[in-house]
Amino acid sequence: MSKLRVGMVGTGFMGRVHSNAYRHITSIFKPAIEPVLQAVCARDAEHTTEFARAWGYEHVETDWRRLIARDDIDAIDICVPNHLHKDIALAAARAGKAVLCEKPLATSFADAEAMCTAVEAAGVANTVWFNYRRMPAVTLAQRMVAEGRLGRIYHYRASFLQDWTIAADIPQGGKALWRLDANEAGSGVLGDLLAHCIDTALWINGPISQVSGMTETFVKERTHTSTGTKQPVSIDDACTFMCRFGNGSLGVFESSRYARGHKANYTFEINGAEGSLRWSLEDLHRLDYMNHGDAADVRGWRSIHVSDHGGKHPYMDHWWVPGLQIGYEHSFIHHAADFLAALAEGKPCAPTFRDALGTQRICEAVLASAAEGRWLNLA
Amino acid sequence: MSKLRVGMVGTGFMGRVHSNAYRHITSIFKPAIEPVLQAVCARDAEHTTEFARAWGYEHVETDWRRLIARDDIDAIDICVPNHLHKDIALAAARAGKAVLCEKPLATSFADAEAMCTAVEAAGVANTVWFNYRRMPAVTLAQRMVAEGRLGRIYHYRASFLQDWTIAADIPQGGKALWRLDANEAGSGVLGDLLAHCIDTALWINGPISQVSGMTETFVKERTHTSTGTKQPVSIDDACTFMCRFGNGSLGVFESSRYARGHKANYTFEINGAEGSLRWSLEDLHRLDYMNHGDAADVRGWRSIHVSDHGGKHPYMDHWWVPGLQIGYEHSFIHHAADFLAALAEGKPCAPTFRDALGTQRICEAVLASAAEGRWLNLA
Amino acid sequence: MSKLRVGMVGTGFMGRVHSNAYRHITSIFKPAIEPVLQAVCARDAEHTTEFARAWGYEHVETDWRRLIARDDIDAIDICVPNHLHKDIALAAARAGKAVLCEKPLATSFADAEAMCTAVEAAGVANTVWFNYRRMPAVTLAQRMVAEGRLGRIYHYRASFLQDWTIAADIPQGGKALWRLDANEAGSGVLGDLLAHCIDTALWINGPISQVSGMTETFVKERTHTSTGTKQPVSIDDACTFMCRFGNGSLGVFESSRYARGHKANYTFEINGAEGSLRWSLEDLHRLDYMNHGDAADVRGWRSIHVSDHGGKHPYMDHWWVPGLQIGYEHSFIHHAADFLAALAEGKPCAPTFRDALGTQRICEAVLASAAEGRWLNLA
Amino acid sequence: MSKLRVGMVGTGFMGRVHSNAYRHITSIFKPAIEPVLQAVCARDAEHTTEFARAWGYEHVETDWRRLIARDDIDAIDICVPNHLHKDIALAAARAGKAVLCEKPLATSFADAEAMCTAVEAAGVANTVWFNYRRMPAVTLAQRMVAEGRLGRIYHYRASFLQDWTIAADIPQGGKALWRLDANEAGSGVLGDLLAHCIDTALWINGPISQVSGMTETFVKERTHTSTGTKQPVSIDDACTFMCRFGNGSLGVFESSRYARGHKANYTFEINGAEGSLRWSLEDLHRLDYMNHGDAADVRGWRSIHVSDHGGKHPYMDHWWVPGLQIGYEHSFIHHAADFLAALAEGKPCAPTFRDALGTQRICEAVLASAAEGRWLNLA
Repeated sequence: MSKLRVGMVGTGFMGRVHSNAYRHITSIFKPAIEPVLQAVCARDAEHTTEFARAWGYEHVETDWRRLIARDDIDAIDICVPNHLHKDIALAAARAGKAVLCEKPLATSFADAEAMCTAVEAAGVANTVWFNYRRMPAVTLAQRMVAEGRLGRIYHYRASFLQDWTIAADIPQGGKALWRLDANEAGSGVLGDLLAHCIDTALWINGPISQVSGMTETFVKERTHTSTGTKQPVSIDDACTFMCRFGNGSLGVFESSRYARGHKANYTFEINGAEGSLRWSLEDLHRLDYMNHGDAADVRGWRSIHVSDHGGKHPYMDHWWVPGLQIGYEHSFIHHAADFLAALAEGKPCAPTFRDALGTQRICEAVLASAAEGRWLNLA
Repeated sequence: MSKLRVGMVGTGFMGRVHSNAYRHITSIFKPAIEPVLQAVCARDAEHTTEFARAWGYEHVETDWRRLIARDDIDAIDICVPNHLHKDIALAAARAGKAVLCEKPLATSFADAEAMCTAVEAAGVANTVWFNYRRMPAVTLAQRMVAEGRLGRIYHYRASFLQDWTIAADIPQGGKALWRLDANEAGSGVLGDLLAHCIDTALWINGPISQVSGMTETFVKERTHTSTGTKQPVSIDDACTFMCRFGNGSLGVFESSRYARGHKANYTFEINGAEGSLRWSLEDLHRLDYMNHGDAADVRGWRSIHVSDHGGKHPYMDHWWVPGLQIGYEHSFIHHAADFLAALAEGKPCAPTFRDALGTQRICEAVLASAAEGRWLNLA
Repeated sequence: MSKLRVGMVGTGFMGRVHSNAYRHITSIFKPAIEPVLQAVCARDAEHTTEFARAWGYEHVETDWRRLIARDDIDAIDICVPNHLHKDIALAAARAGKAVLCEKPLATSFADAEAMCTAVEAAGVANTVWFNYRRMPAVTLAQRMVAEGRLGRIYHYRASFLQDWTIAADIPQGGKALWRLDANEAGSGVLGDLLAHCIDTALWINGPISQVSGMTETFVKERTHTSTGTKQPVSIDDACTFMCRFGNGSLGVFESSRYARGHKANYTFEINGAEGSLRWSLEDLHRLDYMNHGDAADVRGWRSIHVSDHGGKHPYMDHWWVPGLQIGYEHSFIHHAADFLAALAEGKPCAPTFRDALGTQRICEAVLASAAEGRWLNLA
Repeated sequence: MSKLRVGMVGTGFMGRVHSNAYRHITSIFKPAIEPVLQAVCARDAEHTTEFARAWGYEHVETDWRRLIARDDIDAIDICVPNHLHKDIALAAARAGKAVLCEKPLATSFADAEAMCTAVEAAGVANTVWFNYRRMPAVTLAQRMVAEGRLGRIYHYRASFLQDWTIAADIPQGGKALWRLDANEAGSGVLGDLLAHCIDTALWINGPISQVSGMTETFVKERTHTSTGTKQPVSIDDACTFMCRFGNGSLGVFESSRYARGHKANYTFEINGAEGSLRWSLEDLHRLDYMNHGDAADVRGWRSIHVSDHGGKHPYMDHWWVPGLQIGYEHSFIHHAADFLAALAEGKPCAPTFRDALGTQRICEAVLASAAEGRWLNLA
């Protein structure tokens, strides 16, 4: 196999971003296995046909079961609301397709576990689109910690702040707004935003052993798009938790959609005995680094422009010339390229469903902790 | 009375900073009541005499009881380790002196309450040196929130990070290092650093109703300077807490002396429906402001250089010309000037001992919550 | 015509960037006229075939004259060293092809004028890839000045700094290094970097009436790749000029490849009576704005994250969701999309060859001024 | 002599700043020679008496000749408009007083030369208050260049931007506004602002060999406060010049009072083969440093918080604890402390009158170059 024929489920924001990623792979990464935009599936035939034309898909389906049934499809990419992930993933795995699933993996730990079991039982390649691992600055951060350049880690803090749901007249449910309905999303900012922070943290700083969470729903009722009537809002508008990592370091995580002035601001900072790192999605092409080993009179936080090939910045040698930054969507291109490279070598591509299950476990514990008002152990 | 004859207790870092403040008042603020550096007191006569000469004190004492007994002293300024605050404050109040006390007010809520009762019973002027309220940028932030320019507040977060105790061979106890000995300091970063954050938060965002804390001591044993032997470290090296404010907003507070790359980095951010504010002690002359009311195409975080008199920035009209920044010690000059102005008008100067008692209450609750691993209500 | 069949000349850095641009148009911009990657041309057949495969070109040519001779080509895109622009553009115009030419237009004003005359005589669509006009932040800046939001302009300053030629053992000439050979490049940083700054300035701030330039060549000799021997370096390693604009404002422009710590740092700042703007290519997704009309106590430089659709930021509604930044190559996608849209409407797409001729005129005057050590009038 | 009895001439902005400096020396720097605020002189007796009281001067004079005639005065500090510097300095030198003079030294090179000759002939200690040399970040920058940590220097650029004279109805002349009248100030932004940039540049980067300047007066007429009628404005509102340094590096300098959004923004950047430095008066406690010798993958501009004693940052060990920044006025305190230390050792304190004469020479050449529209050699 030198081609991977992709069947895309979903034509929303993530459907666009993933399609864009596949279209870049061949030109930029020259992979051993090339992706083919074979078919796209969504309920509205007209809209889906237009989407297929814009992005270059060969075929259109309106029922994901038919998409999975096609034998000209090698991989299913799941870009639909969270509550639909499970059934599609299970069916795809049963059909022997590779499965690439948007995050969070599922709306519950139980569902996520079932999905994980399914892909492992089927022996199909799988990955979950926690794309921020492949921001070159984040990849560099992970590498630096793994190489011990920060020494013993004392603190890990992360936040993901937005402000788009402050207006009380925004409805909940359905197209674009399913993220405000817990039935479709599973949770609010926890699964949507903090899950990213947790995935990165587990990758860089290892397992979390204890959590204590706090959640809040600022707007208590919103009109539901399906009924046109006010319904209680069941998601978390904001979620914060403290934790302890297995390596002895302390963590603080915070997320909100009520943080005015932040549109999509994922940030983290890591403090170790020998140095510190911090990153912000608002300036994703930079990594701040404080090296305690620098000569004392000229020590200071550095702003690394992660675009300098000579410095062998992750992924950047595939792009332009030093000094020229990339954007948001490139993290998906890198993820897809890594998935294809791993597939060619018969290796797993992290984060796998099992990796994502670990994140799901933390999410569930945070919600439970917040509900019960106490610390929960994860050992 | 047109003079306030100050008796300073302590010649350490804070003794220097306060003395510096008094020396500026007359030139810069032209107060109705002028401070006089009447006497300074510390145990080592030679050192104290040298200190008196450098800073211009008229007299030297080596026993604070004798200092308080002097009838040429109107006010006692307490700049000694925390566990000594109480006895001095009580004696000063009994002697009818005004009392200016370094923060935290005491090493326990009970002691703080006794001190508060004492100054109120004696009817003497009193204040606690939570100096950051008088950083012009912080004062401006408080004014903006009070004027409602941020609308309903959703989030308040603050942190105070340092890195000076990472080395395990730093001893604890005594001169300069009493902050590492809970017997002298009461607590670690909580009282030393987070107390500042709490004072500001209560001032700007109102009362805290619930807290859940977490503390850690990374270096478990340090040589005690008094004995030369290893002793358990009883302070908190790091302290984090989540909280809920009475106004419905959520809070996250963090402090550490193990955050490499931060020397004295107190930061806060406040998110309201109509705008957000953030500030950092590392760049204390700036206040960042996001105004949601700005035209949508040019909306963005502003960096306000709090030095522009035309803009009536708090305190700045007393200093130089627009664009020229002030430094750390100016917050103490402003505090002392406000104290003298309040005294002249017969009004209290916030934060009073009673205000500081509120902060002490939160501190004690955070420690208890961390020890018990549960939320505590403060209603 | 609903397709524009592109013939690409050149497979270097710009050949890649332009090809990438064409590949995005249909998905992202849904243009009335869609680009087709019809053929690519470069001297090395094997390399060009590989390039064609990676980027999806249908055909390969190794002689640009044959490419132009093809009747299945509607437009010629010129991405070869500067000294080759003229002959290709003239032939393409004669053949009635649309011409898209990399900047600078030519190696001399005379050549540029001939090219301009040729495309205008042939009546073919034409544009020059001064791509930075289409950085959304730059486009927004131009719009703000055009709308008078800055009031009368007093100052315009720009610089473009790099550091890649500091090592004296870098050779000159040929592949990748033709930029160091004046025979191929025409000039050094002036045509390569300052031309961008001049194009933006003329667009935003109008005509320049007087210039006084200064150039320097720090490394006087470099090995030429064609001969293997040391030859004098004839380009400008650094170029600075002062100028006066027709609107009475003053300009300062600077460029260098010896500015350590800058890889591709194009910056500009504009000061008007009512406000100021500044931008940096190192953080291309942000525009800094100082609005003098803001309330005086909260006035400050804003950092606009040019990614907020609600704010109708130029081009950004075509991309992802608010808060997610784009990268360098997007400016080319926008340029190509605008070219196709203009073509569909039968309108010119700025900067046209004539617009670029104006930039060439300033470049030539700056070099002459530097050589003669005096001011030159351009009225 | 263990005291230096200062006679201050002038009670404006600089009179305040210098007085403040003298009041700090003893407490903070414990100098071998202590300053005494002996007498202050200005024309308005009442105002001067009030000034004396606020700042602690013992005596008041209203005629500077009488001040100089006093035999209880050891040094004359000149803080009056520029055109008055010469006569006072000459008289003070003749009287054998040390002379500390505000910058620029004089309103012409000829006057400056006479003053220089006078103090040298009299053999009196002398210095010119180019205070920015003693900003710790600037002092550190100079030290780094002197130690060769930047390698060969290629570029030096500096600017000093303000915006306070944009309004056309601001009058010229007299108290506070003498800076707008060339008869009193000698020049506009050149002597007021660029002179600072030139002093720093000569100190850090050595002599300037060639200059080409450009000046502009945006508001052509302003009401003169002495007559109440409109008079032509004879100062430069903006001044820019390019130059070549003796070491082969290129310079660009710019200054304006029409740069909206800048109140007192002096910035410089220096690019060397091994690294670069930049500084801004808006954040005077920071120095940005790019070290090309850093490991390539983590190279980036560092922001050095020049407050870390362990790093032996210049002057900072005299102040507070690491991480706490100082402000504008501290540069004057450092300058005064250095002057006293030099005096105690019988050494000159740079910049001396002779050093300042070098700056005056560049200023005069820049004005002449701008007037004549050509390059001027200074070899």
